[in-house]
Amino acid sequence: MNFIEDLIQSIIDKHSVVCVGLDPRLDKEGEIPQFLIEEFEDPNKVILEFNKILIDNTSDLIPVVKPQIAFYEKYEALSALKETIKYAHKKDLLVILDSKRNDIGATSEAYAYSTFKVFNADACTVNAYLGIDGINPFLEYKEKGIFVLVKTSNPSSRDFQNLFSAKIPNAADSDIEINVENVMLERNYIKMARLVEEWGEALTQFSQFHNLGVVVGATFPQELESIRKIVKNSYVLMPGFGAQGATARDIKSGFNENGLGGIVNSSRGIIYAYNNNKKEYPPEKFADAARAEIISMNEKINKVIKL
Amino acid sequence: MNFIEDLIQSIIDKHSVVCVGLDPRLDKEGEIPQFLIEEFEDPNKVILEFNKILIDNTSDLIPVVKPQIAFYEKYEALSALKETIKYAHKKDLLVILDSKRNDIGATSEAYAYSTFKVFNADACTVNAYLGIDGINPFLEYKEKGIFVLVKTSNPSSRDFQNLFSAKIPNAADSDIEINVENVMLERNYIKMARLVEEWGEALTQFSQFHNLGVVVGATFPQELESIRKIVKNSYVLMPGFGAQGATARDIKSGFNENGLGGIVNSSRGIIYAYNNNKKEYPPEKFADAARAEIISMNEKINKVIKL
Repeated sequence: MNFIEDLIQSIIDKHSVVCVGLDPRLDKEGEIPQFLIEEFEDPNKVILEFNKILIDNTSDLIPVVKPQIAFYEKYEALSALKETIKYAHKKDLLVILDSKRNDIGATSEAYAYSTFKVFNADACTVNAYLGIDGINPFLEYKEKGIFVLVKTSNPSSRDFQNLFSAKIPNAADSDIEINVENVMLERNYIKMARLVEEWGEALTQFSQFHNLGVVVGATFPQELESIRKIVKNSYVLMPGFGAQGATARDIKSGFNENGLGGIVNSSRGIIYAYNNNKKEYPPEKFADAARAEIISMNEKINKVIKL
Repeated sequence: MNFIEDLIQSIIDKHSVVCVGLDPRLDKEGEIPQFLIEEFEDPNKVILEFNKILIDNTSDLIPVVKPQIAFYEKYEALSALKETIKYAHKKDLLVILDSKRNDIGATSEAYAYSTFKVFNADACTVNAYLGIDGINPFLEYKEKGIFVLVKTSNPSSRDFQNLFSAKIPNAADSDIEINVENVMLERNYIKMARLVEEWGEALTQFSQFHNLGVVVGATFPQELESIRKIVKNSYVLMPGFGAQGATARDIKSGFNENGLGGIVNSSRGIIYAYNNNKKEYPPEKFADAARAEIISMNEKINKVIKL
């Protein structure tokens, strides 16, 4: 397998750029249905059953799913995560493990091993605040995909990602502050995109894209447009559709003229969609509600992109 | 308990600012001793036994340990992690879970829950590239400690953390690039330190310090000095001592006139110290080697700080 090649093929075959976030939540009424919690009790079993039913009912409509590891960790359900990934593969789905890992040296190697060998994910998300040292161990798995956080979907992503930044030529590392005149400044997320572009230069491409992608919140359409122009060979994973407020128009600039270049994630807006229309979808029909929501999301997106 | 209060008390009681990194590695010869691997087989048992012996032989010399979760994940040994933390608490040690988590909303809440409730760590490391949204769910656990990555110990931390950055007053978020004259620029790690200082302003202090700390690599003494001046009320966790090359002189500016303000981590330099002197320390005596190494590290550090 090669992640980006398989992803593009599956996107074309299924005519869909929708990624479904598998974020199991057991705490509140209105998330994983109560009947499953009562029937299976053990969180590992509840979550696996929930995911399997979702996958069974939606795998023909989507190329990829994105489990968020934090929830599996919270419920001590990493075995359910592993089994979910295995099941997704059986049902012809690719899997992006959303874990935003970041570290260096042997630690980063351990995370990459865990992601790609223990959990057997096809791709993952990473945070590159630590620079290329933290990314290289993931790049060693040449056939796997990596999505670097560039501009995240949350409001406070501006705190740091939107700071203006400039690389000053010939400035010594030991200078903490420096006065410059007429320097061109760019925001930190633009600088991060430029780093990704640089790190990806030597990678093998399939239909113009390589395995080093980026994460850009669908909630920031202007930023998406700017980043897209920099990382021409990177797939863009766009979270924030639906529950976080982004619409089909917002993600348009993530795609090229063939409808390639991006995948759009929605998590609770799909998997807990049954809560938004309780009359039509009692808890037992949660997967039908998810299916209907994916079809609707797909239609909206495919109207604005040229897949 | 309150993390920073307990940490300071323990530092004073034990006259030590040494933090030992519990990074179990089973792959190569010369890491966790072969005799333990052969005796216990199951990685969960091997790792727990290794950690327990280390803790038994060193807990009187150190206030805190720092397990790196990546290794436990790699060997599917999260139960060993949980048991190690429980055991460390029994032996009067605080525990910083090194996980560098970063996400937003419900996901960040899940990570915080997992860190503080499932694993029962006293503190953790976080990556704040996503801004305050990702930190708030951790701050909700008021009695727990949080260390934000500011300047990491690895060479490529310069890729992004050393970029020059400026917050331009009145610049709209939608401006991607901007031309400015005579603007004062600061490196990204300085900006990150300023964010931490701001986020910590309202927190309760004990002996001048609150529960929101920073991570600064001991490998960057000048940067440490600059950051220390900004985050006056933050404890500084300094990795990179020993195996990564930092010395006692390098970490001096992390401390105030009472020897408070910092902890210095060494991982493989201590726990696998038996490899550096095989004549004196056969594998069976790995914990003696670790103990000797801690005593030596402590002496070196206590010579330059005024604890």
